[in-house]
Amino acid sequence: MRTLTVVLSALALAGPAWAQSPPSLAGRWSIAVDRFGTPTYDEVFLAQDGDKVTGGLFGQIMTGVLANGTLRLQGKDPKRPASGEAKVSGDRMSGTLTVSDGFGGEPTTFAFTASRAPTAPAGPPKRHEFKPTVFHRQFSAMNAPVLTIAPGDTIHTTTVDAGGSDETGKPRVLGGNPQTGPFYVQGALPGDTLAIHIVRLKLNRDWAISDDAIVPRGVDLDLALKGKGASKPVRWRLDREKGLAMLETPGDHTGAYVVPVRPMLGCIATAPQPAGGAPPSGDSGSYGGNMDFNEIVEGATVYLPVSVPGALLYFGDGHALQGDGEINGNALETSLDVEVRVELIPGKRVPGPRVENETHIMGMGLAGSIDDAYRAANGNLAAWLERDYQLTPSEIAEVLGTAVEYRISEVADRNAGVVAKIAKARLATLGKASKPPEKAAAK
Amino acid sequence: MRTLTVVLSALALAGPAWAQSPPSLAGRWSIAVDRFGTPTYDEVFLAQDGDKVTGGLFGQIMTGVLANGTLRLQGKDPKRPASGEAKVSGDRMSGTLTVSDGFGGEPTTFAFTASRAPTAPAGPPKRHEFKPTVFHRQFSAMNAPVLTIAPGDTIHTTTVDAGGSDETGKPRVLGGNPQTGPFYVQGALPGDTLAIHIVRLKLNRDWAISDDAIVPRGVDLDLALKGKGASKPVRWRLDREKGLAMLETPGDHTGAYVVPVRPMLGCIATAPQPAGGAPPSGDSGSYGGNMDFNEIVEGATVYLPVSVPGALLYFGDGHALQGDGEINGNALETSLDVEVRVELIPGKRVPGPRVENETHIMGMGLAGSIDDAYRAANGNLAAWLERDYQLTPSEIAEVLGTAVEYRISEVADRNAGVVAKIAKARLATLGKASKPPEKAAAK
Amino acid sequence: MRTLTVVLSALALAGPAWAQSPPSLAGRWSIAVDRFGTPTYDEVFLAQDGDKVTGGLFGQIMTGVLANGTLRLQGKDPKRPASGEAKVSGDRMSGTLTVSDGFGGEPTTFAFTASRAPTAPAGPPKRHEFKPTVFHRQFSAMNAPVLTIAPGDTIHTTTVDAGGSDETGKPRVLGGNPQTGPFYVQGALPGDTLAIHIVRLKLNRDWAISDDAIVPRGVDLDLALKGKGASKPVRWRLDREKGLAMLETPGDHTGAYVVPVRPMLGCIATAPQPAGGAPPSGDSGSYGGNMDFNEIVEGATVYLPVSVPGALLYFGDGHALQGDGEINGNALETSLDVEVRVELIPGKRVPGPRVENETHIMGMGLAGSIDDAYRAANGNLAAWLERDYQLTPSEIAEVLGTAVEYRISEVADRNAGVVAKIAKARLATLGKASKPPEKAAAK
Amino acid sequence: MRTLTVVLSALALAGPAWAQSPPSLAGRWSIAVDRFGTPTYDEVFLAQDGDKVTGGLFGQIMTGVLANGTLRLQGKDPKRPASGEAKVSGDRMSGTLTVSDGFGGEPTTFAFTASRAPTAPAGPPKRHEFKPTVFHRQFSAMNAPVLTIAPGDTIHTTTVDAGGSDETGKPRVLGGNPQTGPFYVQGALPGDTLAIHIVRLKLNRDWAISDDAIVPRGVDLDLALKGKGASKPVRWRLDREKGLAMLETPGDHTGAYVVPVRPMLGCIATAPQPAGGAPPSGDSGSYGGNMDFNEIVEGATVYLPVSVPGALLYFGDGHALQGDGEINGNALETSLDVEVRVELIPGKRVPGPRVENETHIMGMGLAGSIDDAYRAANGNLAAWLERDYQLTPSEIAEVLGTAVEYRISEVADRNAGVVAKIAKARLATLGKASKPPEKAAAK
Repeated sequence: MRTLTVVLSALALAGPAWAQSPPSLAGRWSIAVDRFGTPTYDEVFLAQDGDKVTGGLFGQIMTGVLANGTLRLQGKDPKRPASGEAKVSGDRMSGTLTVSDGFGGEPTTFAFTASRAPTAPAGPPKRHEFKPTVFHRQFSAMNAPVLTIAPGDTIHTTTVDAGGSDETGKPRVLGGNPQTGPFYVQGALPGDTLAIHIVRLKLNRDWAISDDAIVPRGVDLDLALKGKGASKPVRWRLDREKGLAMLETPGDHTGAYVVPVRPMLGCIATAPQPAGGAPPSGDSGSYGGNMDFNEIVEGATVYLPVSVPGALLYFGDGHALQGDGEINGNALETSLDVEVRVELIPGKRVPGPRVENETHIMGMGLAGSIDDAYRAANGNLAAWLERDYQLTPSEIAEVLGTAVEYRISEVADRNAGVVAKIAKARLATLGKASKPPEKAAAK
Repeated sequence: MRTLTVVLSALALAGPAWAQSPPSLAGRWSIAVDRFGTPTYDEVFLAQDGDKVTGGLFGQIMTGVLANGTLRLQGKDPKRPASGEAKVSGDRMSGTLTVSDGFGGEPTTFAFTASRAPTAPAGPPKRHEFKPTVFHRQFSAMNAPVLTIAPGDTIHTTTVDAGGSDETGKPRVLGGNPQTGPFYVQGALPGDTLAIHIVRLKLNRDWAISDDAIVPRGVDLDLALKGKGASKPVRWRLDREKGLAMLETPGDHTGAYVVPVRPMLGCIATAPQPAGGAPPSGDSGSYGGNMDFNEIVEGATVYLPVSVPGALLYFGDGHALQGDGEINGNALETSLDVEVRVELIPGKRVPGPRVENETHIMGMGLAGSIDDAYRAANGNLAAWLERDYQLTPSEIAEVLGTAVEYRISEVADRNAGVVAKIAKARLATLGKASKPPEKAAAK
Repeated sequence: MRTLTVVLSALALAGPAWAQSPPSLAGRWSIAVDRFGTPTYDEVFLAQDGDKVTGGLFGQIMTGVLANGTLRLQGKDPKRPASGEAKVSGDRMSGTLTVSDGFGGEPTTFAFTASRAPTAPAGPPKRHEFKPTVFHRQFSAMNAPVLTIAPGDTIHTTTVDAGGSDETGKPRVLGGNPQTGPFYVQGALPGDTLAIHIVRLKLNRDWAISDDAIVPRGVDLDLALKGKGASKPVRWRLDREKGLAMLETPGDHTGAYVVPVRPMLGCIATAPQPAGGAPPSGDSGSYGGNMDFNEIVEGATVYLPVSVPGALLYFGDGHALQGDGEINGNALETSLDVEVRVELIPGKRVPGPRVENETHIMGMGLAGSIDDAYRAANGNLAAWLERDYQLTPSEIAEVLGTAVEYRISEVADRNAGVVAKIAKARLATLGKASKPPEKAAAK
Repeated sequence: MRTLTVVLSALALAGPAWAQSPPSLAGRWSIAVDRFGTPTYDEVFLAQDGDKVTGGLFGQIMTGVLANGTLRLQGKDPKRPASGEAKVSGDRMSGTLTVSDGFGGEPTTFAFTASRAPTAPAGPPKRHEFKPTVFHRQFSAMNAPVLTIAPGDTIHTTTVDAGGSDETGKPRVLGGNPQTGPFYVQGALPGDTLAIHIVRLKLNRDWAISDDAIVPRGVDLDLALKGKGASKPVRWRLDREKGLAMLETPGDHTGAYVVPVRPMLGCIATAPQPAGGAPPSGDSGSYGGNMDFNEIVEGATVYLPVSVPGALLYFGDGHALQGDGEINGNALETSLDVEVRVELIPGKRVPGPRVENETHIMGMGLAGSIDDAYRAANGNLAAWLERDYQLTPSEIAEVLGTAVEYRISEVADRNAGVVAKIAKARLATLGKASKPPEKAAAK
């Protein structure tokens, strides 16, 4: 069977009818269902008219009656009988849901808990100084948060290098892009988007490790034979004052070769649903992850979908600099001093990672081939134009056809990455979004 | 950084020199190193001359002296200083290894344990009746074995369907190819190969679930538009007596459509090294996994690499039958009655999953595109011809060029699969292997 | 700009209205338009009511009046003014068409000729003995036919090998798959399908040439490095009596290696429209061409679209035998004795090459990657099931999902090839087509 | 058989020994061999010692004696007997070559002519005003040159749009990227490189045609379904004074959408060897062709390999502007006023098209998938660094790993295109090439 995707509900309710009496349960809830030991998370929108409550659950509309603190629900799809019962207590409820798959199997009863979607916390944003002591090698929803923050808060912390060594060169964890985090963002729910502003990325040591070969995805037969498949580690010196990198032991023709540093985060991710497993920190997907995109630098904003309550933000795998694609398998791997400000865009789903900077908006595609990643990048950017600029398919084709730019962002890992970009100067003439689109939506 | 692959040692020792005095530590050992909490496993070959012991560890040769039950080791690579010390007690040792990466970082000290590679257990093979009560959704090295068997033993058990329902239709676990297992195979070590003979696959209920659309990887623009992206579940009736499947609710033109059942295992895997994470049961790789290859049927033998002690064998995701590639995303998903005999081929590494039946040997390639999977399948089958038939690259090209057959085995999942096959009738004229190659090697 | 595809008309007319008086121009016509020196061909369906004539031309409906042997036409699309005038003489007409592209450019006047689609010629099928003296290296519509045949006729001839040498070993033409043909099939028009039955393929010499390396598309990094990019010619001996091939100068392990011959045509093609250029005989496309599919053997029927009047059938590039994909770049290249029977299926368009044999129907996909070829193969076979078995998209998905088989048929050339097959035993239960589908349609 | 590549000779001679007496035939010659009616071209280097002449021909070393104006040659490879005889007259010779393929076929005799490679013509460069009257739809070596120029000369001319219409909107030729040219460059020989400096590209009318859909290669399933496969022509207005383009009939959200023009050549090509056929003007390859790369603008230099005497330069398919990849199939197609200066780099072979501008050098990869084009682009740029900067494979990996930039340049045509770029600012620190590399080499 193909990989399971657990979908609890994707039914929005048009429900404006419950305006008469002040609804007590109406609104957005966060729900966690225990499916044979695996929690699955989703948002649910409840409507209420008197004591009658309606919501989309398990892919169907359920309606119920709230009486004496107990909500009894019944599904409306005759082919897939479903029912539920929950004790309601203020902004929380807990109970069971019994559902049938409609294909002859027995119905199953699951326990669930739900809580009302929180409103934005009061008070001014905070700045958190965080010194990591544990590093994770999976973008897992099951790792305990290392810190809880509110939307708008800033985190100042550090990351170890991809091999697990910190700013002093001390190995702290087994290599493979160990991550700082996860950070729990209060109020973040499945269906939201996290906007991570990269406030500062600063080198905190004066060397980096890389390799001197090109990954298999990048070599044609001629290059493969020239390179003979060999790869050895190479050490680079980082001149932090001048902002330059140079080989510690150059070859005959690279003695004077210097390249400006441009620190970037190779990995940044939210935790995906636990039902799909816990991707290793070398992998990537709609949750972000090991994207190795060299525009994730100081000043950029990364947008990632929220799949679990609190979002669970991870980042790591700092690179002093990197050409497109991370073609050596390792970029200039180093530890970093990191400062990010995290904002929440409630109720907006993004189909995959997006990046925005001063000049461009960018949609990323991640897939098993560059060809497939290319198609996904177009889909991601087109969805952006459709939602935030209300463009029709024809208009999207015309705008992209005249203004899109493509980058191959990642070739070193299991997923290849392609980025489809469009200049804000072009978008400005579309008239609908004088403000940067996501930021506008975030208010 | 690209995904980490932890390599402890891949150094074979030519060591015939230790023939004089009976070696006490010489031979093959299984080693487990604790790397910041993550165990990594490997085989190590020790040679011994008097009290001098030599072996390949951490990618370099280490030599040492055994005195008073303590083995003290020193690495031979001046660029990467390494040393170790272990208490030896019979066929076990435990101690520490201190290594430097040679790139300026601090050296690190890891605890390790090792045990001598076991010899084949005495006694006749057993037949185990196993009734599963727990089902796993990751091919994890960290799941506790449900049963320990010896090489040569047979397991008779059942699998739930991909959605988690058993032969009675009762949901037992969250869907997504839940697996029966893992089974611990005594004596299996990293560097070995597991040969799983599919003795019997029998339907144990009279229905299956599938879908009525073609997965995105399989549709060109014309098919995509015709199919409109819709997919709905479809229920098939399984006539176990006649061995036929037919739609429970056929369309206008499929009322008489019948297709013979051919039960197969969609998933069969050994656990990969824990350092790489725990792949979800919808994924595949060199460890096997969710390959959905419709030749993994009764009578076939599957070869999988052993990466952790005990191999940790998983299987599940039974299909009543399936066309090539599992193009509906779901095949005819059903529960199965399964009987397998498990053998061990010590000291043989296979680069990826292989299958053998009465007529063919088959090498599988699994990758993010069909093009890449195709290349990997050729590499797998070519390595088979090189090792077991001693063919040169030119001879391999000539034999494959005249006799290879290709199947696209999987398009439904993250990895596409391609199988490169060659008929045993062709191999028979190569003269070197009158017996089936892997079986011969297994003696 | 992307490659031009010239489409003259694709408008079918529903026209049942002209039943009263016996129409003189009504019916199917073959039209040739001279577009600045390049002929473009198409079929046109004319309807007639009294002196009023209607037809689809240049992508729009044109109507006109026939008076005194002159037909004057006027287009119905106000955005793209079009008009025409032709002298009509029996079953032929010639004149001019003036069209505007509707985008501000000046209108253009083109000369055209048209002739009524011929009915099947009377008389029994003939057998033509044809001894080639000229060989073509492009599947060109502009090469003069070497022989004109009627549908149902049989051609008995020979082909030179891919290098241009004949059955005596004499070089006759520069290598690169030189073709025998083109054969002009009376009555074949754009919009028809040619069915070429391979009656006999017989070796006519006792040696073949091949190579001893694997093409770049077939090697992963490991195989590339082992093969070192080298390829040298290899000569095979063909034992015509026993039907076996063996290396003339075997390696150490291939001295006894023998493989049964299975003669096949590497190339078979109809000429594409001249507006698209003339593909070299190493290329392939919807017209067929250098497909190198090892099921194009004695007993098979190949279906190819007709794009120009007379179809212009080419074939060549005989292989004594070949593994899937022609992975050596050259198969066992040899000259052949060829006998084919050619039939015409009027009014049926096929999207690409198809093959049928005793047991299976097969749709081929040809594209720049195996992934794209795979999608095209599904599209081709799905269209077959849709047209000849009236299956809906859901039914197609269900039938293919349970019964499709995939072969990678070509990796040696610019286009990769994939074949999607389905057994006739499966189709038999669909009920609609007790006779082989294309043959039935051909009556 | 895979597509033929005719290789006459690739043997360079180390021959410094013939320094004593002034050689009369020694040096570089251009040779044309008639292979069954198809001319094949190559360069040959002859060495001479007294009356003894040596050269590489047909893949082997041939030696001979010059006596009485007749050169008699004998091959040195005993497996492939070869001989030749030619009348020599000043800087020209003509005769026959008899060669065997070494595989049992009969030897073949071919007529050939050769002429000494010309030295650079005297005199200052000229500027040619050229008004095209004929337009070609194939990059053919067999089209008669429309103009002969000397290296260093400038051509000022015009191109029609991709549909065949000129600056007045008048259709001049059947659409499909009709080309201006071919231009014959005196002294250009196979083995040379042509450097075409784009001096000026100027719009010469105020409208362009495009489409409003995205090509199949660019859409994922979601975009495919949204776009429904429809595409209709769209007309853009070009404000030549302000340098802006805008839709003539905008949609609801694109009324104010404007984008700066940036005129580019969609096609630029040299003719490939006639043995490989004549690619249609919608195709691309190592000869250049329909690359649709939006950096081929005023100020850029394009490098293309010379495959036939005179190079035969073609260009056309002007775009007023284009986003990356020409994703609409048509860019903003328009006629152009074109001025190019053509230089010759003798004795330098480039593996595929290259582009250079003020800031970057760029290697293009063209192949059937983006993945394969990506690999080819790396190979092209790596070969540039290897030859002009003498970098080793390790150094190439290090420089590209830290500085390469990737663009997806073409997705609309049969070949996808990827461009690998590196900034000259990075190359400057490599020290070896203070001047632009190709220009330096051209002196």
